[in-house]
Amino acid sequence: MGRITSCSKLIRQLTHTSRGFASSSAAAQSLGRPGEVVTNVTAPEGPSGVLHVPPRLLMGPGPANSHPRVLAAQTLPLLGHMHPPFFKIMDEIQQGLRYVFQTNSKHVLMVSGTGHAGMEACIANLLEPGETIVVGNNGIWGSRVCDLAERYQAKVVNLQKEPGQTYSKDDLSKALEEHKPAVLFLTQGESSTGTHQNLAGVGELCRKHGTLLLVDTVCSLGGVPLFSDAWEVDAIYSGSQKCLAAPPGGAPLFFGERAFEKLQSRKSKVASYYFDLNLVGDYWGWYDKRFYHHTGMTSTWYGMREALALVANEGLDNMWARHQAVADHLWAGLRELNLEPFVEKPEDRLITVNTIKIPEGVDPVALVTNAMEKYNLEISGGLGGTVGKVWRVGLMGYNAKMENVEMVLAAFRDGLKKQGRL
Amino acid sequence: MGRITSCSKLIRQLTHTSRGFASSSAAAQSLGRPGEVVTNVTAPEGPSGVLHVPPRLLMGPGPANSHPRVLAAQTLPLLGHMHPPFFKIMDEIQQGLRYVFQTNSKHVLMVSGTGHAGMEACIANLLEPGETIVVGNNGIWGSRVCDLAERYQAKVVNLQKEPGQTYSKDDLSKALEEHKPAVLFLTQGESSTGTHQNLAGVGELCRKHGTLLLVDTVCSLGGVPLFSDAWEVDAIYSGSQKCLAAPPGGAPLFFGERAFEKLQSRKSKVASYYFDLNLVGDYWGWYDKRFYHHTGMTSTWYGMREALALVANEGLDNMWARHQAVADHLWAGLRELNLEPFVEKPEDRLITVNTIKIPEGVDPVALVTNAMEKYNLEISGGLGGTVGKVWRVGLMGYNAKMENVEMVLAAFRDGLKKQGRL
Repeated sequence: MGRITSCSKLIRQLTHTSRGFASSSAAAQSLGRPGEVVTNVTAPEGPSGVLHVPPRLLMGPGPANSHPRVLAAQTLPLLGHMHPPFFKIMDEIQQGLRYVFQTNSKHVLMVSGTGHAGMEACIANLLEPGETIVVGNNGIWGSRVCDLAERYQAKVVNLQKEPGQTYSKDDLSKALEEHKPAVLFLTQGESSTGTHQNLAGVGELCRKHGTLLLVDTVCSLGGVPLFSDAWEVDAIYSGSQKCLAAPPGGAPLFFGERAFEKLQSRKSKVASYYFDLNLVGDYWGWYDKRFYHHTGMTSTWYGMREALALVANEGLDNMWARHQAVADHLWAGLRELNLEPFVEKPEDRLITVNTIKIPEGVDPVALVTNAMEKYNLEISGGLGGTVGKVWRVGLMGYNAKMENVEMVLAAFRDGLKKQGRL
Repeated sequence: MGRITSCSKLIRQLTHTSRGFASSSAAAQSLGRPGEVVTNVTAPEGPSGVLHVPPRLLMGPGPANSHPRVLAAQTLPLLGHMHPPFFKIMDEIQQGLRYVFQTNSKHVLMVSGTGHAGMEACIANLLEPGETIVVGNNGIWGSRVCDLAERYQAKVVNLQKEPGQTYSKDDLSKALEEHKPAVLFLTQGESSTGTHQNLAGVGELCRKHGTLLLVDTVCSLGGVPLFSDAWEVDAIYSGSQKCLAAPPGGAPLFFGERAFEKLQSRKSKVASYYFDLNLVGDYWGWYDKRFYHHTGMTSTWYGMREALALVANEGLDNMWARHQAVADHLWAGLRELNLEPFVEKPEDRLITVNTIKIPEGVDPVALVTNAMEKYNLEISGGLGGTVGKVWRVGLMGYNAKMENVEMVLAAFRDGLKKQGRL
């Protein structure tokens, strides 16, 4: 940077055709405004040439590869963010979200940001300063919520568990009894540890204590059963780039009736503008009349509309069965390689992000590196409390296919063989 | 919603092949977890079929149509958000941003959200609670910054001006003298009013008072001259969907050395997690070692990389000259139709979003509607203080072409003729 292009011109020396207003000072002047500092344009050091992206089969905790139809939709020409045909696409996304969340709630939308934006939108809107949140913290996402809720001036009760464990109804009942929190946070699919939190009866429990139940479904939505209404969940955020087979960029969000009432009865203004669901909801038609809050992410919403059409087309029960079948196939193969699940209890094991115990004496990084270098295949190591303890294999969305499982097993077989373990 | 599919099955009745772990309770059980409420999956009411998008020539204040190469890049297969080839793309984006911002600063990145996310990132990071910001508020963006800065507990001095006016060095000098603010906010291109704020000498003035200069360049970056370093601007946010010819979704951000020092010397934690530039910057390599903060918006960054490659390829001075030339052509044509600029002073007129005075007795909506219905062409009405007073015509990025100007002029000609004005 800072280099001067030999061919660059003083801006004021630039000439250009001007008509009509040619005699006015606006058109007669050169590009700089009166009094502006005149300087040379530095030479660009990049980027140059056309973008090249190497092929990768993303079998880690996500992003997973997107469905080609989703990617193709992202080439469609743009619409204005307030055009009726674009509102129709937003409506269709909401229909799709209601289906994937299994809810009748009007209050669903896409947050214009990645999963963390969904997390922040929920925390910012559901909690007022000084209110208490009990955070089920058995992995990285609980930790993030603790950090986030503190920034929004909530009192945080960190209900810590070891990686690989989940919460019993008893654990939660005690915590609710003791802290009477405004919000209870749980992660349905903990992608850093590979646990699946059973949500059975938790909603009912929360209602007894006047607590709102907030659930992270970033890596589980569309891959495992979820019934937002029947299970009395109050608020959910998710991600686009996992079981929904779209690129990262948008965060599906669901607010049930109680969460929506909480939003409407807040005493304090939401501390963020971008995440204020009173305003974002306005843009998504929660209050009937559309109001401009921000410019919707056109291409990303096109892709999301297609992703949700694919979900509706396949049917949720078929999708869940597909995810279960490939996970069963994976574990059958891993067992043949003498690999074991990290999560102790079978009922706690997540099928969308699978954590595999690293056997004593095996170099986990060498295996991961071999998979990438030889097969363009991503298998991931641990994250947070599972670093050095597990490999993580994602079976999500477009990637939840038998042939991909075979590739993963081939990479494990080859990697273990290279270390003399087979 | 709520309708039950006739063909849906009780989840627990679903069977699937299972191998290896077939005897374990995890695999033997059906899809629901023990104790989970068993219910039927509701029928999807949509979306169905493949997405259809009508063609639109977006000559309003943005989004503008994206360059086809940018859209095409969004179909490329995904990379992981922590993969070295993806970091390389992020590096190239930063190179491109340095060029378009005309800076040597290391501290540039894309905020994972639309222009408003960029605005919020700047406010959240540059201001601590109780600090003062003087807001140049001569349109909708100043109003938004006032709202936002209040949410972040800043003291807001609203330096209000009528739509169509800009700030003189004298106006600003007085305000800085009186309020000694931590931050001064100005909008270079006010898309709701069509003004171009001259930034000459403002940076120097701010330094005298220990004030940071924050500038909104959402609709101006790449369309009109900007020299972040030479003009001593401290922080800038922008948008992707205007002169940079990419879809909405990412917000270019620049922090100069003084803004970065402020960030590093904050006494309080940034009140937002998603926008905390200590953490986002970590992901973008500001602190040398990369750290996972959120999942980068893969497809959107692909498109952005191409958009910035197109800027580098054309050259900024050529781009500015192109934007000036089409604006001159537009105004030459408008003058022939007896249409006048809304902004009084020629030197205050923005060339990327042009505001046109609505002549007495003309129905502005009828003209806009005719353009859309007959030509698939977007011309926009006013926003905020300019509603009912102006039309807005954007000449930005990929759309800043002579042929598009001719289309706009044809639509004005036809619309005025229909109202008996020609």
